[in-house]
Amino acid sequence: MSVQHDKERFPKTQQRIAQALQPESKCFQFGADAPLELDGGGVLPSLTIAYQTYGELNAERSNAILVCHALTGDQHAANVHPVTGKPGWWSTMVGPGKPVDTTRYFVLCANIIGGCMGSTGPGSIDPATGRPYGLDFPVITIGDMVRAQVRLLDHLGIDKLLAVIGGSMGGMQVLELAAKYGERVFAAVAIATSARHSSQNIAFHEVGRQAVMADPKWCGGRYLEEGVIPRKGLAVARMAAHITYLSDAALQDKFGRQLQDREGLTFGFDADFQVESYLRYQGYGFVDRFDANSYLYITRAMDYFDLHADYDGVLANAFKGTKTRFCVVSFTSDWLYPTRESRQIVQALNAVAADVSFVEIESDKGHDAFLLEEPEFFATVSGFLNAAAERRGLAPAAPNSESRTV
Amino acid sequence: MSVQHDKERFPKTQQRIAQALQPESKCFQFGADAPLELDGGGVLPSLTIAYQTYGELNAERSNAILVCHALTGDQHAANVHPVTGKPGWWSTMVGPGKPVDTTRYFVLCANIIGGCMGSTGPGSIDPATGRPYGLDFPVITIGDMVRAQVRLLDHLGIDKLLAVIGGSMGGMQVLELAAKYGERVFAAVAIATSARHSSQNIAFHEVGRQAVMADPKWCGGRYLEEGVIPRKGLAVARMAAHITYLSDAALQDKFGRQLQDREGLTFGFDADFQVESYLRYQGYGFVDRFDANSYLYITRAMDYFDLHADYDGVLANAFKGTKTRFCVVSFTSDWLYPTRESRQIVQALNAVAADVSFVEIESDKGHDAFLLEEPEFFATVSGFLNAAAERRGLAPAAPNSESRTV
Repeated sequence: MSVQHDKERFPKTQQRIAQALQPESKCFQFGADAPLELDGGGVLPSLTIAYQTYGELNAERSNAILVCHALTGDQHAANVHPVTGKPGWWSTMVGPGKPVDTTRYFVLCANIIGGCMGSTGPGSIDPATGRPYGLDFPVITIGDMVRAQVRLLDHLGIDKLLAVIGGSMGGMQVLELAAKYGERVFAAVAIATSARHSSQNIAFHEVGRQAVMADPKWCGGRYLEEGVIPRKGLAVARMAAHITYLSDAALQDKFGRQLQDREGLTFGFDADFQVESYLRYQGYGFVDRFDANSYLYITRAMDYFDLHADYDGVLANAFKGTKTRFCVVSFTSDWLYPTRESRQIVQALNAVAADVSFVEIESDKGHDAFLLEEPEFFATVSGFLNAAAERRGLAPAAPNSESRTV
Repeated sequence: MSVQHDKERFPKTQQRIAQALQPESKCFQFGADAPLELDGGGVLPSLTIAYQTYGELNAERSNAILVCHALTGDQHAANVHPVTGKPGWWSTMVGPGKPVDTTRYFVLCANIIGGCMGSTGPGSIDPATGRPYGLDFPVITIGDMVRAQVRLLDHLGIDKLLAVIGGSMGGMQVLELAAKYGERVFAAVAIATSARHSSQNIAFHEVGRQAVMADPKWCGGRYLEEGVIPRKGLAVARMAAHITYLSDAALQDKFGRQLQDREGLTFGFDADFQVESYLRYQGYGFVDRFDANSYLYITRAMDYFDLHADYDGVLANAFKGTKTRFCVVSFTSDWLYPTRESRQIVQALNAVAADVSFVEIESDKGHDAFLLEEPEFFATVSGFLNAAAERRGLAPAAPNSESRTV
């Protein structure tokens, strides 16, 4: 039986599906009496949000930092990932003595709706049918994701975040939250992101979706019921995307034309070059920990993101009268969200006399730099959060915290 | 029966297969007594080269220009394409009064070996088995392609070309020919190309190959016998590649976030955005005129291209003592073959005191600029070829040729 077959062959996929349906993370469930209204018109009933927290919320509830994850991230920012067994995706940034210092701040990271690690998404059971949503899941937006995050803040009794921080799609959520719920955000850090998705980025996402949908094992989105996984399609999507997360220079430095465990060219279609081997590894490794339909929905949400359009084409209007303090960060070699798109955000903030600092970090690591330990980047985030905490009247960092020079 | 089924549904594919097996173009066939030796070690027996010519070879046989095509090009540079019915891929560049002026020059363009428009490739019949080669076709190199082109020159009695010209993979052939058969080339025009394929470019090619091979209709390369076409896989490969041929700015200018024939977002996975619709059109249109296995073989040949390595890592040695006049052209927005790679070629030529002119053309059209009518680019090619013709003692262009300002 194919169900058993694919599951037996891919035990990590099975673990991932288990986490999607019964996450080990904390969960907050909206009752059916409070459905989430969606930008697309519909509602999501009985919504679950799976989240992780690090550190302690202080008595004044003034030290909370919301971390927003990117396309393929999840709530496991700073703990060991329950499927891969690897450190969380931002464990360099979040932790005791790290820029987002968990000895000082209460850090919260929730799996976005549409995701596949426990929050309601296309792999969840549709209460109306008793089977996985598949493509019956409504197309969601960054606005919807943020509306769900705000519900979680309400649930936790956090009226105003000390800060919200995120890179890439996480940065889109930062901008959305600061624009539409400005009173809930004291400070906002938007990293390697854009206020609207570019034509080229929509194009790359479309290639990824077409690759997934081209896989016959996708089954029109019903693969979970069929007991199969569109591994090849999702792996191809990830390979294409992965190239865009790096830079030409990073690939050249890391791999160049070096051969993979061989003396010479083999005159065949095996992975002769290290870069080919690396890409295949990245592609198929991704399938273990991610859901194909979530990939479709989340890329779509990013494509739809256009904060300019939400304010009649004038981005500055998104931030009119804002009291939030902003930090905008870009990386020189990021060609997916190039510095000029960060500058547009900064210009809009300047136009409304917002408090904004902007740093372009010199790095040859491409878009992925936001996930890496880049000293200047870490110093920027650390310094900005310290200043925000001080301004909000938090006690200084304990001298015995495991602080380190960044 | 699936054979009939796919053929009936895709009549252009059938036309393309007919052109591959019995091209309308001129053909030169090597006898089995003169097999082509290959860089990979094997030989190709009974090789066919399909080619087109434009203009007349003069009595001195001194006015021949070889045009080398790129990955998805073919011999139909300046005539109506027998499958698509559209003008040839370089009909703006090649023709009466055009930069490659067919009233003055004898222009030759051959389908590369490994191709799918009549020259021997993976879709040809393997004389050893009587069925299409498929993956039994040997992996070929740019060197092998050029060795076949030289055979064709021998056959036509052309000892020395006035010029060889090509962009992208065509430019690789230009460099290879000038390096290894310098005595056969008076002038060489290498456009939007590189002396070795970069890590990022290998990575993008690998994604394309994986997309083709992920399609179950690829059938391990035996789809022709199975009567099916790996349309979806090849279309995905083409979509990913197509993005790399353009520039971020070109996509933004041409499409931005404009919607495709609709008033608003549909909150679904249809092609809401014009750029999505365009990509799908490009992807599936490509399948009509190209062969999936040829795509694998030709991308592989490009990946393997490393003229530095052929000369112990010193590119200058490839051109030591050359008497060929070179023109190297790059485009500012070409991120696939960026200007710095053209500069490496120029520096190598300078190191051996070769006669070289280098022009970086300002264009926002990306890599595809070499296929477009860019006035400064056309003026460069026209001027360079005129000077070469004059230097070689050709009569000046006839005053009544349909010359035009470029």
